[in-house]
Amino acid sequence: MSKKILIVGLGLIGGSYAMGLKKKGYEVYAIARRQDSIDYAIKNEIIDGGQTDVTKELVSSFDRVVISVYPKVLLSWLEEYKDFFKEGTIITDVTGIKCEVVYKIQDMLPSGVEFIGAHPMAGREVYGVENANDAIFKNANYIVTPTDKNTAEAIDFAKEIGALLEFKNISILSPEEHDRMIAFLSQLTHCIAVSLMTCKDNTHLHEYTGDSFRDLTRIANINENMWSELFLMNKDVLVKEMDCFLDEFKNLRDLINNEDVEAIKDKMRLSSTRRSYFNKKA
Amino acid sequence: MSKKILIVGLGLIGGSYAMGLKKKGYEVYAIARRQDSIDYAIKNEIIDGGQTDVTKELVSSFDRVVISVYPKVLLSWLEEYKDFFKEGTIITDVTGIKCEVVYKIQDMLPSGVEFIGAHPMAGREVYGVENANDAIFKNANYIVTPTDKNTAEAIDFAKEIGALLEFKNISILSPEEHDRMIAFLSQLTHCIAVSLMTCKDNTHLHEYTGDSFRDLTRIANINENMWSELFLMNKDVLVKEMDCFLDEFKNLRDLINNEDVEAIKDKMRLSSTRRSYFNKKA
Repeated sequence: MSKKILIVGLGLIGGSYAMGLKKKGYEVYAIARRQDSIDYAIKNEIIDGGQTDVTKELVSSFDRVVISVYPKVLLSWLEEYKDFFKEGTIITDVTGIKCEVVYKIQDMLPSGVEFIGAHPMAGREVYGVENANDAIFKNANYIVTPTDKNTAEAIDFAKEIGALLEFKNISILSPEEHDRMIAFLSQLTHCIAVSLMTCKDNTHLHEYTGDSFRDLTRIANINENMWSELFLMNKDVLVKEMDCFLDEFKNLRDLINNEDVEAIKDKMRLSSTRRSYFNKKA
Repeated sequence: MSKKILIVGLGLIGGSYAMGLKKKGYEVYAIARRQDSIDYAIKNEIIDGGQTDVTKELVSSFDRVVISVYPKVLLSWLEEYKDFFKEGTIITDVTGIKCEVVYKIQDMLPSGVEFIGAHPMAGREVYGVENANDAIFKNANYIVTPTDKNTAEAIDFAKEIGALLEFKNISILSPEEHDRMIAFLSQLTHCIAVSLMTCKDNTHLHEYTGDSFRDLTRIANINENMWSELFLMNKDVLVKEMDCFLDEFKNLRDLINNEDVEAIKDKMRLSSTRRSYFNKKA
């Protein structure tokens, strides 16, 4: 396995990948939009080198690449530079939706250049390489999303990245399974948190807030550019999950309105039972 | 101020009150349903003494009382034993709804016995005096809910309890303000968490869960007896808050379905701005 890797995009996740992979002995180079990010990352020994120019000379000197940018930029960047890669290159990514990127990229790339999707389920409400910290992966899930076009070598490469970054769980899902899972666990919860904050002016209530409201709205501090892309690129699945939640919430509202105590208690018991599966293992 | 206090109900909250007040020099007695709870609390120096029998002799030997039981039991217990209190007694409580208990109790009590409502906004997903721990109050809010029937002495007593237990914030709200606040911040969030768990079988997803789903559903492990009482005793206000959230969530669902990117980003920006008021102060 090559011990040289190119990371495209030096934000929080790209920077944290660089930091973790460099610690494991990789020679890490980066392409970033801002020279500031490159300078900071070199100075803090997060990368070995990098540049803002995208040149064929640089890109073709790597056979392992991680692209860590927003989904639409991922698509347009690869469209523009796909011919810069040398034969035998394996590329992976970090984006939070898969069907809309994986199939398009696999169709677009020249033969001999392989794309394998991956999703590190980690993040913070802060941005930029200045906040990079590979510790964010330690307790997190990492999902590889191969299609029937992927080779065992590429799948192993993606899994190896997850292992080197010390993710807690490394799983394999199809792009479709991934997108359904993420629509429910992540996108729906962000929609709920946003709606809780926008449904009425509640800022005067902050002094009374207990942990429950604070927990439910932690993710209401949301990067609108990234998340609007993620929502719309997974629109059909997300809207289906939102409708499922809406129906159930309306149902509970009616049970409360009709004072149907036993049915309310049944819901609460089912909720408590299911929630027990999600308790963190010590 | 009397340094002797009677606590009725030795659950998590009653036990934690006892523990905190005893540390501050109070002589603490308890009435509990189970002799086990009394024995445990005496053995662990949480109370100075206690009994399961409710006798006039015991009750009338205190002029300061905290009743720490579910709201319906609070009402029926006081209905049954209201004539046991001596003149000059001040009684406070810990329940999470106020209009339905405060006014009824104030109407019910004999003259010379005063009730002042209070709500310690603290709790855990564990029960019983065995889990009592006065540390749960340290970072929490405490709300006193006087009516125009309350004396300054009673309000001061309720505030003093909050101060002795070292709550972070002690506030005064009317019962109506309290119930509107709690419907939004606490009851609505519990309805959301329950609906997230009951809308479909999601237990197979636990291995992919990131922090957001886990945070949003922590409170989905819910005591169905207590919470169904709290919901129904605040029904009109809660249903109004549920409808407000429902409308906004449907609105966001339609914006996503119509791919109205700018409106979605506006919602996310408003959400992020409002959320910043709820960040924990260091």
